[in-house]
Amino acid sequence: MNILITSGGTTEKIDEVRSISNNSTGMLGKTIAEAFASFDSTEKIYYICGLTAILPDTSKAETRRVGSVAELEAEVRNALSFEHIDAIIHCMAVSDYSVGTVTTSKLIEDSICDCIAADNMRIASKEKKRSLVANAISNVETLSNSSKISSEMDDLVLILKKTPKIISLFKQLAPEAVLVGFKLLNDVSYDTLIETGYGVLTKNDCDFVLANDLIEISSDKHIGYLIDENKNVQRMATKKEIADKIAFVVRKQISNARKL
Amino acid sequence: MNILITSGGTTEKIDEVRSISNNSTGMLGKTIAEAFASFDSTEKIYYICGLTAILPDTSKAETRRVGSVAELEAEVRNALSFEHIDAIIHCMAVSDYSVGTVTTSKLIEDSICDCIAADNMRIASKEKKRSLVANAISNVETLSNSSKISSEMDDLVLILKKTPKIISLFKQLAPEAVLVGFKLLNDVSYDTLIETGYGVLTKNDCDFVLANDLIEISSDKHIGYLIDENKNVQRMATKKEIADKIAFVVRKQISNARKL
Repeated sequence: MNILITSGGTTEKIDEVRSISNNSTGMLGKTIAEAFASFDSTEKIYYICGLTAILPDTSKAETRRVGSVAELEAEVRNALSFEHIDAIIHCMAVSDYSVGTVTTSKLIEDSICDCIAADNMRIASKEKKRSLVANAISNVETLSNSSKISSEMDDLVLILKKTPKIISLFKQLAPEAVLVGFKLLNDVSYDTLIETGYGVLTKNDCDFVLANDLIEISSDKHIGYLIDENKNVQRMATKKEIADKIAFVVRKQISNARKL
Repeated sequence: MNILITSGGTTEKIDEVRSISNNSTGMLGKTIAEAFASFDSTEKIYYICGLTAILPDTSKAETRRVGSVAELEAEVRNALSFEHIDAIIHCMAVSDYSVGTVTTSKLIEDSICDCIAADNMRIASKEKKRSLVANAISNVETLSNSSKISSEMDDLVLILKKTPKIISLFKQLAPEAVLVGFKLLNDVSYDTLIETGYGVLTKNDCDFVLANDLIEISSDKHIGYLIDENKNVQRMATKKEIADKIAFVVRKQISNARKL
């Protein structure tokens, strides 16, 4: 079987020297890759990971490093269009936002003040005023973000726009592949964690979702809840347990599907 | 002699999983540390570096990793108040901005629209209007940035505020130490590069500044211009040449000062 694993975190450039990163060492993805590599039936692992992600220790992994979400999308499309993939383990911490506009408070003030000064503002309805203000913000003058931003501005304002949801692509591109999604929350109740994880599963047509909470992750423990399509939940307590469990259930599902 | 070297890049948290990083591998700092370590007269190297910076291969280095600019400042103050430091090589890529406010376009619109609706806006002078708008922006409602920001907002707006200039601290805290500053620009003329580098030297009372341009840096070359107090310029072409030159001129300056 061929497995696609995404791991580590994405990096969205602000300029040539600054970027926004999703912090992830890639340790969980590495451990999952090694769990799959231990099966004789695993032929190849397409390992798409962040720029600084730690790599799995197996000759079965073919690694592609990606920076931005756009680069991740291109690599995912590439892998899924040229190869038969039996399962996708999407544990990369993908940025929900990329850098749209780089500007300053002062330039936003300029844009708003121009808007307020305009004659049509005085007679506009409340809704119209709101739309004029929204327009003033979205048309704010931008600093060049192609090169290095000067350190001389009093402040810097970054307007971030949503990135495409990579997880929603997988079943479109590989409907037969077993899909495992991940959902990381911070300091929520057990019920919220499971409900949110199950929401990710149904929305993106995942076979399993691993839900986890930042406050339950430290150097020597990693509590994870593996949720299946019937909302059954299995709890694991370390990265190794999570990796072994995911590899086990995914292999079983692939083998069941082949027997059908 | 005791040397303080800063290296790598800083990391400013947006929330528990996202951060703004200054990209720097720390390779130049590592090479400089190793050049100093090769001198018998070097006793200790205080190596303050970013979270992912590569480390020098010498037993003389005592390493402290720092994330934010605030952490860097604390480590610098600590090192300089407890130890006698003969020279400071400040090659860390320090963020000029830290995360002040995390909000959305929608919340900025709300704040501005409330401001426009207020009675005092209609009769205000142009200057007063501007100050009301500035106030509306700086008092915008913020998303909690203590935990993980939801991925459900249409956009995210980060208002970044200036960080203190670490380079300006060194001669206040260690007036006798030889200070080497660094200035990285992107795609500028030779004259602009040297003028800007010399400006950093005079403003921060540096003994030397290494000016370099992103477009002249690649995996196997690193063009650097070492500027001294008399605006003499020496050109180097690799990280090794830069490191050796800096170690040489700094050691010479320390030894001349001791003879006086």
